[in-house]
Amino acid sequence: MKPFFEVQTLEAVWQRARDTRPLASETVDLAAAADRTLAHDFAAPHDLPGFVRSTMDGFAVRARDTFGATESQAGYLKLQGEVIMGRVPDFSLDAGSCARIGTGGMLPDGADAVIMVEHTREASRDTIEVSRSVAPGSHVIGAADDAEAGQVLLAAGQRLRPQDVGLLAALGVEEPQVFRKPRAGIISTGDEVVPVDTEPGPGEVRDVNATVLGAQVRSAGGQPMTMGLVPDDEDRLRQTVAKSLEENDLTLLSGGSSMGVRDLTAEIFLSFPGAELLVHGVSVAPGKPFIWVRVGHHHLLGLPGQVTSCLVTFHLFVEPLLERLLGREGTAFTRFGRLDATLTRNIASAAGRELFQRVRVEQTGAGWQAEPVHGRSGLLRSLVQGHGLVRVPLGSEGLDEGSKIEVLLFPGESS
Amino acid sequence: MKPFFEVQTLEAVWQRARDTRPLASETVDLAAAADRTLAHDFAAPHDLPGFVRSTMDGFAVRARDTFGATESQAGYLKLQGEVIMGRVPDFSLDAGSCARIGTGGMLPDGADAVIMVEHTREASRDTIEVSRSVAPGSHVIGAADDAEAGQVLLAAGQRLRPQDVGLLAALGVEEPQVFRKPRAGIISTGDEVVPVDTEPGPGEVRDVNATVLGAQVRSAGGQPMTMGLVPDDEDRLRQTVAKSLEENDLTLLSGGSSMGVRDLTAEIFLSFPGAELLVHGVSVAPGKPFIWVRVGHHHLLGLPGQVTSCLVTFHLFVEPLLERLLGREGTAFTRFGRLDATLTRNIASAAGRELFQRVRVEQTGAGWQAEPVHGRSGLLRSLVQGHGLVRVPLGSEGLDEGSKIEVLLFPGESS
Repeated sequence: MKPFFEVQTLEAVWQRARDTRPLASETVDLAAAADRTLAHDFAAPHDLPGFVRSTMDGFAVRARDTFGATESQAGYLKLQGEVIMGRVPDFSLDAGSCARIGTGGMLPDGADAVIMVEHTREASRDTIEVSRSVAPGSHVIGAADDAEAGQVLLAAGQRLRPQDVGLLAALGVEEPQVFRKPRAGIISTGDEVVPVDTEPGPGEVRDVNATVLGAQVRSAGGQPMTMGLVPDDEDRLRQTVAKSLEENDLTLLSGGSSMGVRDLTAEIFLSFPGAELLVHGVSVAPGKPFIWVRVGHHHLLGLPGQVTSCLVTFHLFVEPLLERLLGREGTAFTRFGRLDATLTRNIASAAGRELFQRVRVEQTGAGWQAEPVHGRSGLLRSLVQGHGLVRVPLGSEGLDEGSKIEVLLFPGESS
Repeated sequence: MKPFFEVQTLEAVWQRARDTRPLASETVDLAAAADRTLAHDFAAPHDLPGFVRSTMDGFAVRARDTFGATESQAGYLKLQGEVIMGRVPDFSLDAGSCARIGTGGMLPDGADAVIMVEHTREASRDTIEVSRSVAPGSHVIGAADDAEAGQVLLAAGQRLRPQDVGLLAALGVEEPQVFRKPRAGIISTGDEVVPVDTEPGPGEVRDVNATVLGAQVRSAGGQPMTMGLVPDDEDRLRQTVAKSLEENDLTLLSGGSSMGVRDLTAEIFLSFPGAELLVHGVSVAPGKPFIWVRVGHHHLLGLPGQVTSCLVTFHLFVEPLLERLLGREGTAFTRFGRLDATLTRNIASAAGRELFQRVRVEQTGAGWQAEPVHGRSGLLRSLVQGHGLVRVPLGSEGLDEGSKIEVLLFPGESS
């Protein structure tokens, strides 16, 4: 069976990613929750901090007792006691009195403000001199100032940063519910390809794509599963895809570079019961030969064999799908930094397709400069030397030297 | 012993980070090498790809045999054979002949170019019609085009991206040498603080800082080691610090919020033999009370107890040190994205210190807007709601509404 071949736009493929249903959720230890994606809206189970706390070292007071106090006309308060950290004060503050309190201490009943230790002086063993007035609420956090019981604090689909994990900790969530990591089976093909630990003979090369894709999957939040290196043999390829279909959520097959294998990929993908061809060819370079077949909830993805094309195609198509499976929006390039720069040379493109051109960036007196990195797509060097991508939109015939452009910085690129 | 107290500038502290010696190196499996830092310059052990390869499906030719061929005046070549993928061709190409070859195939002796299959036609079983001329070197990768033996491809101190790991794979490096992950002992203090899994009573709060710092250490490339929650007790604090000194490369003690503990921290740090006070106070907000004591190769770091100050202080001071221990330059904010934005409200600062103001960003018709997020530093909310930081330099009294500013986007912030 010969699959139909209708080239789609990048936008149409991205829409398919957005239309995909996220995976199920699971619980994780809080210590492993950073960078995972929350599976449900999170509402505060109780007020936070839950009691009125001091934000300074000083004295808990009734604010009105300090009114009028100045450097030249100090006020005096009776030292009624001390707040023990972590305990409920065993007294109520009397009018005209104060209590020693540390940062984080609980205000006694009757107190409504804290005066900083810097604005006081011990006049005697039980008298505190106050040289400033404070307003009610000064230097205190109210019982529900950080969160009110029931208030939604974090939204489903949010990637948890350290501070978000901190908020969960503060509210006693020991095992948050997050989306499961997508398991991505990685298959390399090619009769000329040998495993990394094998010395290649003349005419052979090591399996680079499996290594690169594995690192990309992991850094995008998925779990790479090595399915092996398969020679260009239809039956063995089909068997390996079938195994990955069974064990994983998606399969990445980086097309053997030899003739025939690329055509074969779509045929093998479509040979599984219920297979549905979503994408076969995209108007973008690199990434044109991308294939996407859905079988039930599994996604079979065919990527170019050339390593540079394979890496960029991952960012263009696989990563939005991973994002979506992880319960996020399914947008491309969310993990790329952005940098405004000036183009140092023309980039030629062809109408009717988008181009993602690799560039190096360099900071000069005249700001950031972006230099196109050319080099055949089989060369790793152009990727290793590149810092990011410049997008040349559909319908444009290229970008002129001197243009102001936005560089999409590869994930992991330091600034 | 009362430590001296001379407030230093941010730049002076950063210089100390840069002056620190990196940790030792270790080997890791290639599959775990992404995001680690290379410990030595890496030179190609052999040429890459090591043989002349085709970058297209088509026919290997002697370029001069195609000269003059056009659509209207086709040339004809004898089909001499086929290149088997992964094998050395068992023939030399004769003049006036061609050989079928797939992408990645090895050119036979005599051939110096490839003509794409699209520009050919099978005129007969053993004759190929050629409708275009190709120059020598067309559609081929030379034996050393990706790398020449001995050429330095990756530099020591470089964080490995997926493509860099791919280059190592291509050259057969199964276990690259990378800098060891710094082990960071994390100690929380405070009589009012209870573990996350404990229901806090009135006056108590859960231990947020240990969770946040653990996630920050991990995401910055270190290994967090939980040393426990210690009450405000000098002996127990000293014992826990001593244990961390023995087991880890650095210790993060987020200061108990109660009075006295902050002064105690420096004293305990300085009580160890050979202790050297590097920093005690920095002209920056937040982060002013930061303490850095070196004991041999170990770093004892005292951080503010307030969670928002603690998190920002980590980025300001701990992360550059981690970067440096990992063999990198020791620069702050390398993992932060940058965003140009317009300030929506004034930010007031005080002369004589730098300010890092938390902001929210929002995209509007007039570009990105940055809104200062105020809120007492004990509140998690202002961090959870914030997207990044704006730096107000030393000597400035603030930034005006409408100013064009650069926002440092928190790591993990999606764009």
